[in-house]
Amino acid sequence: MELKTLIRDVPDFPKKGIIFKDICPLLQNHTAFSQAVDQFARRFEGSGVDVIVGIESRGFIFGAALAYKMGAAFVPVRKVGKLPSEVIQESYALEYGNGTVEMHRDAIVSGQRVLLVDDLLATGGTMSAAVNLVKRLGGHVVGAAFLVELTFLDGRKALPGQDVVSLIQY
Amino acid sequence: MELKTLIRDVPDFPKKGIIFKDICPLLQNHTAFSQAVDQFARRFEGSGVDVIVGIESRGFIFGAALAYKMGAAFVPVRKVGKLPSEVIQESYALEYGNGTVEMHRDAIVSGQRVLLVDDLLATGGTMSAAVNLVKRLGGHVVGAAFLVELTFLDGRKALPGQDVVSLIQY
Repeated sequence: MELKTLIRDVPDFPKKGIIFKDICPLLQNHTAFSQAVDQFARRFEGSGVDVIVGIESRGFIFGAALAYKMGAAFVPVRKVGKLPSEVIQESYALEYGNGTVEMHRDAIVSGQRVLLVDDLLATGGTMSAAVNLVKRLGGHVVGAAFLVELTFLDGRKALPGQDVVSLIQY
Repeated sequence: MELKTLIRDVPDFPKKGIIFKDICPLLQNHTAFSQAVDQFARRFEGSGVDVIVGIESRGFIFGAALAYKMGAAFVPVRKVGKLPSEVIQESYALEYGNGTVEMHRDAIVSGQRVLLVDDLLATGGTMSAAVNLVKRLGGHVVGAAFLVELTFLDGRKALPGQDVVSLIQY
């Protein structure tokens, strides 16, 4: 199945002039959803992944399914104020201003092998911040996996030295 | 493994006087996470589930893993303004004011068998609204599954006639 045919372009979302890549049609197709998870799993088979980090909130969808498939733990990276216990933070640049993401301070044990997952690679700012959170806790970053990559935004440049994988490219 | 031992009480979150049930320690334990997903799957084995609906955003974690395990589609229910395409809405009462959740209008095909998933059953308001969204699209609700149920809040009363399942009770 050609996964790309199940990504829907939604014009002017979240604001005028932006064409949003909607992954919902892919999620609604159980064959495509399984196939995407299996492709990620095959790509990182034998990498000894202990922990999948999923980035709020669409990253939770592929991250959690992949954690189940690979027999790994699941750790969420969330926006500010959503995680209840003690956190560490990283900020990153947005088009206007800054974004901040958080992870529980006890989420990762030093030395664990960590694969990060999100739905979309755009400029790479959020993923880069999430990678820093993992490293600050002593985690070893095995790679960063995305369903969709907008190659014209050069997000890989924000993730130097990382094994970046995407299943669908624009 | 006793899943309940991996739920962490966080006092005064999100506000003073509330003891938050934090599921993160359970997610961080890959054996417990797999076990929880497998328990849900066994409970609804043979129910012919076509679609798992996960409620933003912790419901995405167990919902997506369960969709993968059961070979079902995944559909997100989200807060207002997050879904890009045409949506239907349901509102529900909160302690102060109202909450509203949305689902894509094309998310479910009439006649599909749907299992709804969230992390926590409290008063049942959000889940009841999500059940209504599914029914409005012609879906047949097979059940509502929660990792944790706060039985003293009587959330099941908000879900009359539904097959409500929880893995951990307080």
